[in-house]
Amino acid sequence: MNNNNNHQNFQPNRKKYAVTRHTDQPPQKGIRPQKKTTRPREQHRAPVRIIPLGGLNEIGKNMTVFECSNDMFILDCGLAFPDAEMPGVDIVIPDFSYVEHHKDKLRGIVITHGHEDHIGGLAYLLKKVNAPVYGSAMTIGLIRHKLEEHGILNKVPLNVTEPRKTIHMGCMTVEFIKVNHSIPGSMGVIIYTPAGIMVHTGDFKVDFSPVDGERIDLGRFGELGNRGVLALMADSTNAERPGYTPSESKVGTTFEKLFTKARNRRIIIATFSSNIHRIQQIINMAAKTKRKVAVLGRSMVNVIATALELGYLEVPKNIIIDIETIHQYAPEQLVLITTGSQGEPMSALTRMAMHDHNKIEITAMDFIILSANPIPGNEKHVTKVVNELLKSGAEVIYESMYDVHVSGHACQEELKLMLALTRPKFYLPMHGEYKHLVKNRGLALEMGIAKENILLASIGDILETDGSYMRIVGQVPAGKTLVDGLGVGDVGSIVLRDRKHLSEDGLIIIIIGIQRSTNEIVSGPDIVSRGFVYVREAEDLMVQARHIMRCTLSECTYAELREWASLKLKLRDKMSEFIFEQTKRSPMILPIIMEI
Amino acid sequence: MNNNNNHQNFQPNRKKYAVTRHTDQPPQKGIRPQKKTTRPREQHRAPVRIIPLGGLNEIGKNMTVFECSNDMFILDCGLAFPDAEMPGVDIVIPDFSYVEHHKDKLRGIVITHGHEDHIGGLAYLLKKVNAPVYGSAMTIGLIRHKLEEHGILNKVPLNVTEPRKTIHMGCMTVEFIKVNHSIPGSMGVIIYTPAGIMVHTGDFKVDFSPVDGERIDLGRFGELGNRGVLALMADSTNAERPGYTPSESKVGTTFEKLFTKARNRRIIIATFSSNIHRIQQIINMAAKTKRKVAVLGRSMVNVIATALELGYLEVPKNIIIDIETIHQYAPEQLVLITTGSQGEPMSALTRMAMHDHNKIEITAMDFIILSANPIPGNEKHVTKVVNELLKSGAEVIYESMYDVHVSGHACQEELKLMLALTRPKFYLPMHGEYKHLVKNRGLALEMGIAKENILLASIGDILETDGSYMRIVGQVPAGKTLVDGLGVGDVGSIVLRDRKHLSEDGLIIIIIGIQRSTNEIVSGPDIVSRGFVYVREAEDLMVQARHIMRCTLSECTYAELREWASLKLKLRDKMSEFIFEQTKRSPMILPIIMEI
Repeated sequence: MNNNNNHQNFQPNRKKYAVTRHTDQPPQKGIRPQKKTTRPREQHRAPVRIIPLGGLNEIGKNMTVFECSNDMFILDCGLAFPDAEMPGVDIVIPDFSYVEHHKDKLRGIVITHGHEDHIGGLAYLLKKVNAPVYGSAMTIGLIRHKLEEHGILNKVPLNVTEPRKTIHMGCMTVEFIKVNHSIPGSMGVIIYTPAGIMVHTGDFKVDFSPVDGERIDLGRFGELGNRGVLALMADSTNAERPGYTPSESKVGTTFEKLFTKARNRRIIIATFSSNIHRIQQIINMAAKTKRKVAVLGRSMVNVIATALELGYLEVPKNIIIDIETIHQYAPEQLVLITTGSQGEPMSALTRMAMHDHNKIEITAMDFIILSANPIPGNEKHVTKVVNELLKSGAEVIYESMYDVHVSGHACQEELKLMLALTRPKFYLPMHGEYKHLVKNRGLALEMGIAKENILLASIGDILETDGSYMRIVGQVPAGKTLVDGLGVGDVGSIVLRDRKHLSEDGLIIIIIGIQRSTNEIVSGPDIVSRGFVYVREAEDLMVQARHIMRCTLSECTYAELREWASLKLKLRDKMSEFIFEQTKRSPMILPIIMEI
Repeated sequence: MNNNNNHQNFQPNRKKYAVTRHTDQPPQKGIRPQKKTTRPREQHRAPVRIIPLGGLNEIGKNMTVFECSNDMFILDCGLAFPDAEMPGVDIVIPDFSYVEHHKDKLRGIVITHGHEDHIGGLAYLLKKVNAPVYGSAMTIGLIRHKLEEHGILNKVPLNVTEPRKTIHMGCMTVEFIKVNHSIPGSMGVIIYTPAGIMVHTGDFKVDFSPVDGERIDLGRFGELGNRGVLALMADSTNAERPGYTPSESKVGTTFEKLFTKARNRRIIIATFSSNIHRIQQIINMAAKTKRKVAVLGRSMVNVIATALELGYLEVPKNIIIDIETIHQYAPEQLVLITTGSQGEPMSALTRMAMHDHNKIEITAMDFIILSANPIPGNEKHVTKVVNELLKSGAEVIYESMYDVHVSGHACQEELKLMLALTRPKFYLPMHGEYKHLVKNRGLALEMGIAKENILLASIGDILETDGSYMRIVGQVPAGKTLVDGLGVGDVGSIVLRDRKHLSEDGLIIIIIGIQRSTNEIVSGPDIVSRGFVYVREAEDLMVQARHIMRCTLSECTYAELREWASLKLKLRDKMSEFIFEQTKRSPMILPIIMEI
């Protein structure tokens, strides 16, 4: 974890990856001459199609296909996390079938930044198609790690690119543009197409004082606006929030206050492992206050290692220590950086809170900062962790008590700024639930974009444009592919319905053995239940249930005993009725007839 | 639903219930003479015990036992809603065993207000013990309805009381005191005990301009403070929030703006059915804008009926119309009041959003207001409903877009005000998770209460005081009793663990028939699965699994085939290992051996 890299500015050291030149044209300082000048808007141009396969009407699994003539490229390939309706599911990825069916057209995969909702589906996609991948050094570093885990690291070329560089994707050209976000190496894209210039912001915010000094390239966005932008696709995540998202540096100021407040206590800070700028600010404060830094949690250790290797993190010599050596230091000499800011059950912080961590014991000598807001759905997990940490006597800084977190996404005024700079003809709110897209549309309306030129699309929609119009001309297959363990797509609605049913009322199994030749019941009925009642305390109920099954069977005619499908149905109905009457519950009833 | 009651002030018409005088002393205008004057603090007094059975380190199921010599009474008896760890559970109630074991001492049950987290456990308690119940007319009206549903309406006397009235509970006397909250008829209690005066705020806020004009009785709290309060128990729900909770009237001002904004559209407002003052303000605005009001949702209809009957709602003649007649009115002539502000799956608003309501179709002519904040855990449900309503083209006002909701609980400055008025010797933060209790303690420290005099108790703790000390002297049984259908307490940790397991990976059943006499396998192994994979697409896996079971059985010795317990274990382990290797999933494996 030690790093000797000690220079003063935080420019990522990109020398470790050679920057591939993806275009055979010489790099251009000014604005590239475009076909626009020779072909006025009215003329016919090859239509371009934008096909979102994820990230609309949902949070996560961002993925968009751009298509023109015989060329296609993909922008981002993320995952989403399962909700309560998908018990047991690990992750959700987009339906790739459209891409698979047109894989011969696929020229490349462009990734805007290294968050899971933009890269998490990539390994699964690359098991089905081959195409070079393009992204910043940080993004490619994180992708490399993922592909390694999936054992497909060398399957496709991974190309490191950077802002202002361009890549040809057949008849389309992609240029990268610097944006600010909560992970280093975030970029938007400019897509030069026969129909006109398109801009996709990626996930972005406008940070005038970013930690690494690299501001969003507002000038380039403005240049493009002057030249004429056909379509702007913009991040809707924070479209509900008025004002501006504060600068990441603001958190640094808060850390300064809190480090003073912590005084002689050990400081533990939980944050997102990918927020390298946050981690940089923690390290800066640690250096300033002469504390050593130890890192906890698998993803935190991995991402910090990647960031160090690529020069995205600036770490003074000997400040990072091994977690095994922390007992050599007094509490006031330590800062621990850990995962678990979302109360994830298996994370380091949660295990500390539950007194289940083998290296860290929380005491009243701990000063703990949750440097993150709970993502919707995680509130209860976070609260549980906070409660448990407090019970150990620690001081805990969480939620809005101090400015210990800022968002990585543009608020309303930043979205308006982006609209003001690019002045697009068509506006496509991206990345968000329907309510976010609607709010984003509202901002564009305020900025004077015509209502009919703002398109709220759904995943699978084919948006077509030739520069003069843009409309939805059809649909391709799109949806959720559920990943559970090694299974990709083998858990569908029937399995989920069964899991849901089983989880709510459990299950009762009725087993009977019937001698086929004589049609005689030679065994059972036996009854087994799970997740229904604690059987030892409900023996009466079980005895009665068995009795009812016996009666039902004894009333069956010879013919009925031969028709197993309808016999099962009858047993199920009788049992179901009896159990509901007795308990007002509806467990899954599973009659099994064994042929002897 | 019509109501001819047309007078101008909103004083609840309490004549419909006779107010019971619970004390045989004449009502006293001033301060009651207390033993304090004759018995200085140093003298020995009968110890009083406070035993919280719910509402500490949790949200909901509020219940506290007060005990002195041979007398006991209960303050509140609420329910909590199950969390994600309790699938299929309907509600959670306190463990009543301590009360049951001492039911001969029970003198009465006092209810502060009619919310579910204060009355929802009462019907279950009254099936086990007998004691008169005391509460405001509104509270008793709602309890009456609940006990009717449980078929135990006439089991115990239900006594309507009101602020400044007192009830004797053996050697303790309870006086009611007016507080503001989000349901009419909310009261705190003053408990005169041999050890001293105790005050429990109940759920409260300080509203200087309440809709019904009835302000919290700050004067009485101040009087008590001057006299000497031994212990204050206060609502911690909003102890994390700085400042003051705004007045309920503020929502009325917002409604005024929004009704103008809605113009010629139909207005639909979702709120908590118990928030009668909110509903009053909607009705007032409807009257002012000449709209008719229709009510949707079972609990909304019921609570409004109770409030009307008891005079808590002031409704101009002919303004409330039957839902069946709404087609006779233009959109701009209508306001619908509905349940579903929390996105509850079966609520009226959710059904409207999902196009599943038989009377209401949402269109672009609807202006919908969610007049409530999502309760932690409900955020995703609410978002889903908002998204779907927006997709129908309706305008939707939700969350913090406008001041369409205010809390019913005291923020930090109100808690300080309560501390400043009552100046208690001991402070017991109540009603909240640990983090809320800690924040509430922080406020008391700021107000100068000694740290050792602030007790953060847990449910089941016995807090004892004789006026000079207060400390935890022991524990009684306390916890969660889960209600699932008709079963109370029959779903425990084993059943929940099974439900959780079943929901995450489903189940595989292995069935074998063995002839006991010959020890021969006469049927199977058969394999049945549910919630694991979609079997039609995983036939190979199932065929292999069956093969492995066959091999395992064929390798068994004669002796092993007789030892069914260990045979089952062996089959389970083999299957488990195979399935995990193939799928990285761990379904529940259930081997069933049938004796033929």
